Amino acid sequence: MHKTLPALATRLVSSLAAALLLSPSAQAAGQPDPGKRPSSADVLAAAQPGDWREVKAEDALLMELASGPVVIELAREFAPVHASNIVRLARGGYFDGLAIIRVQDNYVTQWGDADDEAPTARAKPADLAKAPVEFSRALKGLDFRALPERDGWAPQVGFVQGWPVAADPKKGHAWLTHCNSMVGAARGNEPDSSDGSGLYTVIGHAPRALDLNITSVGRVLQGMERLSALPRGAGALGFYEKAEQRTPIQRVRVLADVPEAERPKLQVLRTDTATWKRWLDSRRYRSGWFVHSPDRVELCSALPPVRPAP
Amino acid sequence: MHKTLPALATRLVSSLAAALLLSPSAQAAGQPDPGKRPSSADVLAAAQPGDWREVKAEDALLMELASGPVVIELAREFAPVHASNIVRLARGGYFDGLAIIRVQDNYVTQWGDADDEAPTARAKPADLAKAPVEFSRALKGLDFRALPERDGWAPQVGFVQGWPVAADPKKGHAWLTHCNSMVGAARGNEPDSSDGSGLYTVIGHAPRALDLNITSVGRVLQGMERLSALPRGAGALGFYEKAEQRTPIQRVRVLADVPEAERPKLQVLRTDTATWKRWLDSRRYRSGWFVHSPDRVELCSALPPVRPAP
Repeated sequence: MHKTLPALATRLVSSLAAALLLSPSAQAAGQPDPGKRPSSADVLAAAQPGDWREVKAEDALLMELASGPVVIELAREFAPVHASNIVRLARGGYFDGLAIIRVQDNYVTQWGDADDEAPTARAKPADLAKAPVEFSRALKGLDFRALPERDGWAPQVGFVQGWPVAADPKKGHAWLTHCNSMVGAARGNEPDSSDGSGLYTVIGHAPRALDLNITSVGRVLQGMERLSALPRGAGALGFYEKAEQRTPIQRVRVLADVPEAERPKLQVLRTDTATWKRWLDSRRYRSGWFVHSPDRVELCSALPPVRPAP
Repeated sequence: MHKTLPALATRLVSSLAAALLLSPSAQAAGQPDPGKRPSSADVLAAAQPGDWREVKAEDALLMELASGPVVIELAREFAPVHASNIVRLARGGYFDGLAIIRVQDNYVTQWGDADDEAPTARAKPADLAKAPVEFSRALKGLDFRALPERDGWAPQVGFVQGWPVAADPKKGHAWLTHCNSMVGAARGNEPDSSDGSGLYTVIGHAPRALDLNITSVGRVLQGMERLSALPRGAGALGFYEKAEQRTPIQRVRVLADVPEAERPKLQVLRTDTATWKRWLDSRRYRSGWFVHSPDRVELCSALPPVRPAP
């Protein structure tokens, strides 16, 4: 057995990964002894079908790279205009043949049109919506489940249907947080200069200072490693200096437009259930390999697991 | 100009990177307007030679990969026995020809002997010290500079000569925190089963739940992207399934043993100066591209910049 560290709560719980999490070596390396508190894997193994929610095919993108698929869920409740724009752009083939143009270590991977606002920029639909700033939204109307833990970045943090969210009840607003794997809409110096045609995802430590400064639009649910393990760009801000260093985007489709048989069907663990509370507790109270239980979770270290629909 | 995000405070401030941070495009993308608060780049540009500390050549490693060098500083004040073991192992050629054996997305990259405790394991010096648990040490004797910000993981967090540190003044101890780029000593189920022969670095969001559970031994000061951008392992816990997927380690030398002319000479921004306070403020109070100033810093988003000695 390797000397090692315990398993990270996996983002993607495939049947293979679930099996591995329960393998003797994983157990020896990090799972609680029998009779101790249930591990995260134990909680997921005991979850019922109703503990998972579907990812709506109208609200998700399938981005195809040479290395394989990347699935992104869009957060319509938080960025409705950006989400609609992105769906519209994808349906018009806007992203097909564009590229990943920037990878800055411990920060972001960004994709879109390298020529952006140049005369050679790829055309967008003439009537594409001018997107407003969607940095936050009203707290009212959201099924916000606050964590008891505070993190200093916001009065409250927690989850809304699987999305990591910060909230300020006094001001009455809420916003998606810049956790690893969250996706946002790149903008220029003007706050309302994003339209959803340029996107990025967080590949390192959560840069929470970006919260309330840019529109978050979704989360990478599958294929995150295809974006995080790319060579870092050597130019300013991590942009690639040469076109041939970029990773081409073969195609981006709305999941609903992908033929049923080839469509990835994913589920996200619901964050309004007793199972979810047990899962959080399995992350809070650690034993086995751990000699010091942290007795807390942190928002960006507790994003809900994702699995293929059984 | 690309729609984009502002620059991340760079880990490695090379003269090239410093120039780029001040380039018009970078300025347009994220630096404050002239007349506003100084940016991080402004603060570094105004820093004096005495604001930087040297990296002692006896306390640093040069790990050579095919992709280039990785420089790791060892934290002797926090893990003296592990640091001595690692230096001893490096001097004996222990790491030469071993490999990076595990990369788990948003978690860790781990290297050492894939055969580990198997009969085919690489031999270690017979009198290599049995390393004790070095998860924390006495707070007394450390020049600990606490941040005013709390993060929920410890009563206090701050810096000791550039190291990110958490402290519990009531219990009188302090420990290195698991920030991105920090290096630790892999262990098995027994808390005292690490000896420094297997190492890992954090490549994603800080897994602070590991704090006080494993011995941190240092920080990657240069070449972090050579460890973070590697293909993720498909096996359990991110271990590679096949030997040919591993990245060979060509050689690891103590920096003091590298001929002077080819030795990377690095400096870390001191964390006990007025310049450091200004640098933290430049990260706390944001303007320019930012419309919402976070008015706070977070320990693991504020690791001190590193530069080649001028």
